[in-house]
Amino acid sequence: MKQTALVMVDMQRDFLQPSSPLFVAQGPDVLANVVRALEAARAAGMPVVHVVRRHRSTGIDVDMCRKELFERTGGFLVTDSLGAEAPGALRPLDSEVVIAKTRWSGFFATDLDLVLRRMEVRHIVLMGLQTPNCIRATAVDALSLDYAVTVLSDATGSQTVDVQQSNLEDMTAMGVQILTTQQFVDLVRDT
Amino acid sequence: MKQTALVMVDMQRDFLQPSSPLFVAQGPDVLANVVRALEAARAAGMPVVHVVRRHRSTGIDVDMCRKELFERTGGFLVTDSLGAEAPGALRPLDSEVVIAKTRWSGFFATDLDLVLRRMEVRHIVLMGLQTPNCIRATAVDALSLDYAVTVLSDATGSQTVDVQQSNLEDMTAMGVQILTTQQFVDLVRDT
Repeated sequence: MKQTALVMVDMQRDFLQPSSPLFVAQGPDVLANVVRALEAARAAGMPVVHVVRRHRSTGIDVDMCRKELFERTGGFLVTDSLGAEAPGALRPLDSEVVIAKTRWSGFFATDLDLVLRRMEVRHIVLMGLQTPNCIRATAVDALSLDYAVTVLSDATGSQTVDVQQSNLEDMTAMGVQILTTQQFVDLVRDT
Repeated sequence: MKQTALVMVDMQRDFLQPSSPLFVAQGPDVLANVVRALEAARAAGMPVVHVVRRHRSTGIDVDMCRKELFERTGGFLVTDSLGAEAPGALRPLDSEVVIAKTRWSGFFATDLDLVLRRMEVRHIVLMGLQTPNCIRATAVDALSLDYAVTVLSDATGSQTVDVQQSNLEDMTAMGVQILTTQQFVDLVRDT
């Protein structure tokens, strides 16, 4: 697993709280596995990158498809708001890179590719929320940029079991490696 | 001047203070004109965009050509540091967009293009520091993205008068409109 980084996507309160307009149903279920994978990567000295969605309070950078929702609900994932934060166990360390994005893919209009290149990362392991949107879009861009991509099947979540399953199948067909959190933890420990 | 935004680039303490390793010699000289243009745009209701350079404290996102300098000097333009701030008169209003970048062009690995598109801006007026690097790189990308581009000749600065002049000439040849601050202020007032 040389030149590999663990990339955690959108593990933020506004995706994890049932009262939020952006709540992802499987979010709370995968939290424990996300924490396990994060701790395993840190213990092994594997670099960790935190990709998060953040919006300016004016909403000028919100996806068109969510603009009306942002305005109607008073906004979400606003920079420096509680809703944009990660739960305590997932907070970035000072040594870890945080990438703020405003669209689905972690590569879109961000410096994620530049930073991974500087770290000499050639393989990213994705976990977080939600599988059909940000995980998949990030995986597709990563593949397009010649990264090897692994997705953790039980440390990523969707709104339903069916959506989760069909997206994992689609990504497998595109060349993404699918591992369970346990498989990832074992691999990292043995490296 | 419809669909025009004033884009202020890199007017930050670490470019304006003689003790900084990134000091731009003409920076202090153009400060008054930058303030004038900013105030004229605000008075006319023209949107203002603040493009700033910010680096993570680890330096992972610093240009390769400045990496050694960043490490040797203990860093510059670090997010949330005093050196990354604008002088008081140039601070962004809450309603104004701030774009943080890590390279010369304001468009490189940022969402500047997305935000300008959302604002329906088709013409940008550039001012700030420094002319051969960030002003010119941003102008070139803007032209490539089909924006009309104006540069304020005496609200942009370089290390020397010769560099300033030759860069304004080069940009004119590329299709950039060059105006003085006075011309800009008059145009904005008459619109």
